[in-house]
Amino acid sequence: MANFEGHALPGSFFIIFGLWWSVKYSLKYHIMKMNKDGHTPRFFESVEVFEGATKVFCSLVGMLAEQFVPSGPHLALLSGETHTWVKLMNWQHSTMYLFFGISGAMDILTYSSIKVPIGLDRLGLSVALFVEGFLFYYHVVNRPMLDQHIHSLLLTAIFSGTLCTLLEVFLRDNIVLELFRASLALLQGTWFWQIGFVLYPPSGGPQWEEEDHGNIMFITMCFCWHYATSILIVALNYALTHCCIRKCRRNKGQIEIGLGIRKKHKENSRTSLLNESDEE
Amino acid sequence: MANFEGHALPGSFFIIFGLWWSVKYSLKYHIMKMNKDGHTPRFFESVEVFEGATKVFCSLVGMLAEQFVPSGPHLALLSGETHTWVKLMNWQHSTMYLFFGISGAMDILTYSSIKVPIGLDRLGLSVALFVEGFLFYYHVVNRPMLDQHIHSLLLTAIFSGTLCTLLEVFLRDNIVLELFRASLALLQGTWFWQIGFVLYPPSGGPQWEEEDHGNIMFITMCFCWHYATSILIVALNYALTHCCIRKCRRNKGQIEIGLGIRKKHKENSRTSLLNESDEE
Amino acid sequence: MANFEGHALPGSFFIIFGLWWSVKYSLKYHIMKMNKDGHTPRFFESVEVFEGATKVFCSLVGMLAEQFVPSGPHLALLSGETHTWVKLMNWQHSTMYLFFGISGAMDILTYSSIKVPIGLDRLGLSVALFVEGFLFYYHVVNRPMLDQHIHSLLLTAIFSGTLCTLLEVFLRDNIVLELFRASLALLQGTWFWQIGFVLYPPSGGPQWEEEDHGNIMFITMCFCWHYATSILIVALNYALTHCCIRKCRRNKGQIEIGLGIRKKHKENSRTSLLNESDEE
Amino acid sequence: MANFEGHALPGSFFIIFGLWWSVKYSLKYHIMKMNKDGHTPRFFESVEVFEGATKVFCSLVGMLAEQFVPSGPHLALLSGETHTWVKLMNWQHSTMYLFFGISGAMDILTYSSIKVPIGLDRLGLSVALFVEGFLFYYHVVNRPMLDQHIHSLLLTAIFSGTLCTLLEVFLRDNIVLELFRASLALLQGTWFWQIGFVLYPPSGGPQWEEEDHGNIMFITMCFCWHYATSILIVALNYALTHCCIRKCRRNKGQIEIGLGIRKKHKENSRTSLLNESDEE
Repeated sequence: MANFEGHALPGSFFIIFGLWWSVKYSLKYHIMKMNKDGHTPRFFESVEVFEGATKVFCSLVGMLAEQFVPSGPHLALLSGETHTWVKLMNWQHSTMYLFFGISGAMDILTYSSIKVPIGLDRLGLSVALFVEGFLFYYHVVNRPMLDQHIHSLLLTAIFSGTLCTLLEVFLRDNIVLELFRASLALLQGTWFWQIGFVLYPPSGGPQWEEEDHGNIMFITMCFCWHYATSILIVALNYALTHCCIRKCRRNKGQIEIGLGIRKKHKENSRTSLLNESDEE
Repeated sequence: MANFEGHALPGSFFIIFGLWWSVKYSLKYHIMKMNKDGHTPRFFESVEVFEGATKVFCSLVGMLAEQFVPSGPHLALLSGETHTWVKLMNWQHSTMYLFFGISGAMDILTYSSIKVPIGLDRLGLSVALFVEGFLFYYHVVNRPMLDQHIHSLLLTAIFSGTLCTLLEVFLRDNIVLELFRASLALLQGTWFWQIGFVLYPPSGGPQWEEEDHGNIMFITMCFCWHYATSILIVALNYALTHCCIRKCRRNKGQIEIGLGIRKKHKENSRTSLLNESDEE
Repeated sequence: MANFEGHALPGSFFIIFGLWWSVKYSLKYHIMKMNKDGHTPRFFESVEVFEGATKVFCSLVGMLAEQFVPSGPHLALLSGETHTWVKLMNWQHSTMYLFFGISGAMDILTYSSIKVPIGLDRLGLSVALFVEGFLFYYHVVNRPMLDQHIHSLLLTAIFSGTLCTLLEVFLRDNIVLELFRASLALLQGTWFWQIGFVLYPPSGGPQWEEEDHGNIMFITMCFCWHYATSILIVALNYALTHCCIRKCRRNKGQIEIGLGIRKKHKENSRTSLLNESDEE
Repeated sequence: MANFEGHALPGSFFIIFGLWWSVKYSLKYHIMKMNKDGHTPRFFESVEVFEGATKVFCSLVGMLAEQFVPSGPHLALLSGETHTWVKLMNWQHSTMYLFFGISGAMDILTYSSIKVPIGLDRLGLSVALFVEGFLFYYHVVNRPMLDQHIHSLLLTAIFSGTLCTLLEVFLRDNIVLELFRASLALLQGTWFWQIGFVLYPPSGGPQWEEEDHGNIMFITMCFCWHYATSILIVALNYALTHCCIRKCRRNKGQIEIGLGIRKKHKENSRTSLLNESDEE
């Protein structure tokens, strides 16, 4: 949707995922550090399934929104009379959402009973990001200079994300890559909002001069500021989780961590039983 | 061959290989998971040799077809009278097939008695795909916009395949890369058919408007849909193999897996004999 | 600052860091080789913190210089009257310095008590270099040919550095990459000076002919000579450190190395005490 | 030197190195396979030093040839009268040779007593190839289409070599990469000769039509044929070495392999002596 809402919707999705990832991976890392055997509690597997389901849900929302807004194609692809394509923009956006949906489905399957090979979930996300960037790349031809430039900056964030996620296929559970991905998701999210504000000012203010070189220069720099901010947010979340976990441990009787330890305890007692029966 | 058949032939080759790979690697993965020692049955080595031989055969068919169709160069490269090159298109296609033939020969040699270093077979396939993309890249200069665009989309599939296979040189037997390669082969195959249908409609219908921007946008999106479909096909094959293997194991007395186990059993008994004679 | 000083300042920073890195990493490598257990003395951790602090300091100097030189923006971004951007060049340079500052902060945090995951410091430096290259890339549009070319050569040094540092995230303490990074920092530093001399001759001499193809060819070659020189400097530093360490060991009672050994000795004695108490 | 000899000289260098590498690495691989402990004979270290020295020598020959041919610059860079650059082409070629010389020096140092960190020799070669490609890239601007195209094909070979050698920094002694590098060196060598034949026909025949699209298409394909040939040559060398080693082993009392074994034997006996004295 070539309007403010059409940029705010995906932007919000990415911001939510960026925030969520920065919290989730920080939490996982701190818990793993504390459990001295480098063990991740089982609890995180159901979290992954929940995340996958959320992805599928968000994608469905996005696809339906693109199709059934008043100005949308309403599932018509080819207009019969004029033999022309109907609302290709909306169709392209729907396609982008579709691949994020596939990625979400892969996430769910990886932790289900079918046991899809580990790593396919990251490859799925990487492909989804690549398709997003790929479609955007051919999307913005023949547009004014500022429009092209602001979208090509978005491509930087998208393809960096693609690369980062692709590396995660081979370097799974690497906290550096995971936080990097979170920061890139945040960047993409806030940049979608920025695009909305620049190209379709919601307050109905004056449009930006689209061919002014100064605007181009400012927007490039502004993109870097967005990234500096998103690094800051990830760093804050990391620090906050660190403090929370510490407090949790001391005060509240180790609820969350206990969850993992109790399970491990059960397993241990079971194993020791088995060992005993072996030794008898 | 700049006609429908010239695109359908390589397209079919790639679809067959894509389907075959998705089945083979799924099968291998499931068997390895079941044999708890992570052992692959010897059976697969002869399968690899057979695959190499098929590649060589397909390449020969392709080369002969390009050379000896009525409109082909019939092995003439330089026309003596006019001092011009004869049917360079067909020659270029022959060259592409040649490299897939070399890759097939490498596959065979890797599992033969000469013991070519492992990894060279993947490098060979990677080079074959690179040469294909490389020739296509210089192939489509000076063509109408739609023709160029539809081929440049093909390049995306080809070079992704090159990269994926190159990674396999170093990360051999990585199921994620293997399934990714299968999906890319399927994509390439179906896209060859798509090119045939768009540029040389076999039903003799009206040609597509080659300079229409809407067509370009649709084709880009259509490429993504092809990939979504090929992901689905690979996923289905993976799931089907999973079920088959399970059933096989339970009902039919573990025929295929037994093949591997019996061999291993023989080896084990031989080793135990050796150990006994050592111990005596 | 589009003058000689504006290029000499960052150039000097990079030369200092290049020299420092070539010495530091050579020293670390030689000491590790001598301590036969491949142990790095604790001493280097405080060095890293000091380096981070220096980075933050240099960045602040750079940012303040860009903002508060007489021709600078003095923190004004938008001029109220004409609704145009103020001194975007200086703002862009400030942004570059900002990211090096963030990288410095990450360096400090990695070795502080918060224990930021290892690898993030390298990622921070890689991002800082990327942002520098990214801003320069859009910086030089619409300039004369020689100006563009001389900056695009700089980009080669910057992006090689980005890639090298990115690899270090995953291959930490790899002496080859560390020396490579040092040589690229030197190259960047001397090239900044070269740009200053070519575009803003400080002696007030005649300007270079900006559209002459011969000048372009010479500058390209000159860039390679700069790199050959920086390789030589790194090699010299490596050799000198080697000799110094050897002499130190023989003559001066192993002061620096002793620092590490004494600590290790203490740890050992502590451990042996523990062992004894265990054995009792 | 923009003539046939100027292309034949580097071409011959690369062909010699390509052939040499394909033999050396095959030999090394076969010997390592036979010595069941995966041990490489010391003999190869002196071979590496010799190779480095040859590289330095070839580079010197190249540099001197470029400087002191009758049409060369004779070490003059700036002509005093006209204030123009003298024979920049020759200077650029000299620079290319210079970096190969540096790479050769690194090879020697790696196996000398100074013990340069392992991997730097490969990085040196990678940088030399990069500089070669880098200078060629800016070399061919403003030339006729065929000239540009034939050189850009060369760039493919050069940059593939750069990448392959860069990988070897981290994956040392990987036979696949080593044979790949040999095949790329052969390709580069034969392509230099091809460029000479096309642009400066030594027989004084008619020049090629430089703007003909057919010629471009043929040259692209021809490049692939060169690579197919170089693959064949490497494969032949690999097979021949295999046979030689086998025969050697059976007939001649294992001369070459013995060299390694004898040394190892000595070391073993020395170690066993030490052990004995320890045990006493």
